[in-house]
Amino acid sequence: MSAPLSGKLIGVGTGPGDPELLTVKAVKALAAADVLAYFAKEGRRGNARGIVDGMLKADLIELPLYYPVTTEIDKEHDDYKSQITGFYDVSAATVAAHLDAGRTVAILSEGDPLFYGSYMHLHVRLAGRFPAEVIPGITAMSGCWSMAGLPIVQGDDVLSVLPGTMAETELLRRLCDTEAAVIMKVGRNLPKIRRALAASGKLAQAVYVERGTMASAAMIPLAEKADDVAPYFSLVLVAGWKGKP
Amino acid sequence: MSAPLSGKLIGVGTGPGDPELLTVKAVKALAAADVLAYFAKEGRRGNARGIVDGMLKADLIELPLYYPVTTEIDKEHDDYKSQITGFYDVSAATVAAHLDAGRTVAILSEGDPLFYGSYMHLHVRLAGRFPAEVIPGITAMSGCWSMAGLPIVQGDDVLSVLPGTMAETELLRRLCDTEAAVIMKVGRNLPKIRRALAASGKLAQAVYVERGTMASAAMIPLAEKADDVAPYFSLVLVAGWKGKP
Repeated sequence: MSAPLSGKLIGVGTGPGDPELLTVKAVKALAAADVLAYFAKEGRRGNARGIVDGMLKADLIELPLYYPVTTEIDKEHDDYKSQITGFYDVSAATVAAHLDAGRTVAILSEGDPLFYGSYMHLHVRLAGRFPAEVIPGITAMSGCWSMAGLPIVQGDDVLSVLPGTMAETELLRRLCDTEAAVIMKVGRNLPKIRRALAASGKLAQAVYVERGTMASAAMIPLAEKADDVAPYFSLVLVAGWKGKP
Repeated sequence: MSAPLSGKLIGVGTGPGDPELLTVKAVKALAAADVLAYFAKEGRRGNARGIVDGMLKADLIELPLYYPVTTEIDKEHDDYKSQITGFYDVSAATVAAHLDAGRTVAILSEGDPLFYGSYMHLHVRLAGRFPAEVIPGITAMSGCWSMAGLPIVQGDDVLSVLPGTMAETELLRRLCDTEAAVIMKVGRNLPKIRRALAASGKLAQAVYVERGTMASAAMIPLAEKADDVAPYFSLVLVAGWKGKP
């Protein structure tokens, strides 16, 4: 009698929003999976689960992993860190039980699983113990510059991916020190981002994109955007490409 | 009598090598295209064309666009710039003739079309005159960190994408000023990259990947790589993710 085989852990990138931006490999992985897991806020499905809505088989076991805390506690606070660490530990144990039972578990990740994705918290806890595969996805930034038709980098350009949460002086310094930039996590940080771009001389090149590749997507040159209202998952793009052949 | 409709220009990202890493949208675009264009060296097909080999219909018009110069002339030399600019102009005119005739033209681009891709030279020449769409592709760097199972960035990490061609002091300065880094265009620059990583204290974290996601892919911690032999399209990854929940 041979030992029972464990299932496989698969991190599946769903891309930025348009369901047709899943890779062929991701679609096949979803069709073959026994269990579909995804992180979400309590009471919601989350964007990643919404993207794959039309491509799931009927007998798939769904395993939503609901965050215990969201924005109520400061992220630097010890309570937040211990709660979220405990949550990832419990989530990993839940997934591990399915893997031990021989089931293949696909973990959805909006965009690309290892690029700012929550999937990595399960990967680092489980990939050493079970067969694991990561299927890359189109990142939100790539979906946005493609939708905008904006050549983002060319030749020997440096690209800096910057969280909009950083201090204004630091953001300005980094914008002055790069050819191209992608500013993530815009949201409430938009007034600060706008000031830093103006001070760096790059405001005229900046393009604002929200909900890139989704049906409700919108983009506008940032200099023409009249208000400072932005969802958290909007982006600002500064293309480095200029004067090239 | 209505005016004849022009065809559509579509930049199609083929991803990093594995044909299953094309998006569903890219596969559909290839199936619907009348003309398939791609840049290549004279006498070769190029990587992008090789990736889609098994998914082309029989009556597709193939339009290889052969570079007039490659590595014989210094890239900063005026002769190179005028030759390559003229080549992109002629290529755009050839594609435009097909679009004017009402044909949909798919332009292949390895990786992601607007991320260091040659497609952008056609896009900037044609997108103002014809309907144009860019279908993003999985970047080489994303294919590599997924294959390596390496969480590249998390939370508020800064990611710097750096060409390995830059001066050693500049490379060192930038490696010290970022959480995560992707170093592109490794090739002959590997000894310099290794020295800059060692000086920055990040050599132990660095992972070397060549031909990511292709059948011949290889990866190794850079500190364990005994030689300095590397193809031009290899990458070095430095993950920013550490000590997170």
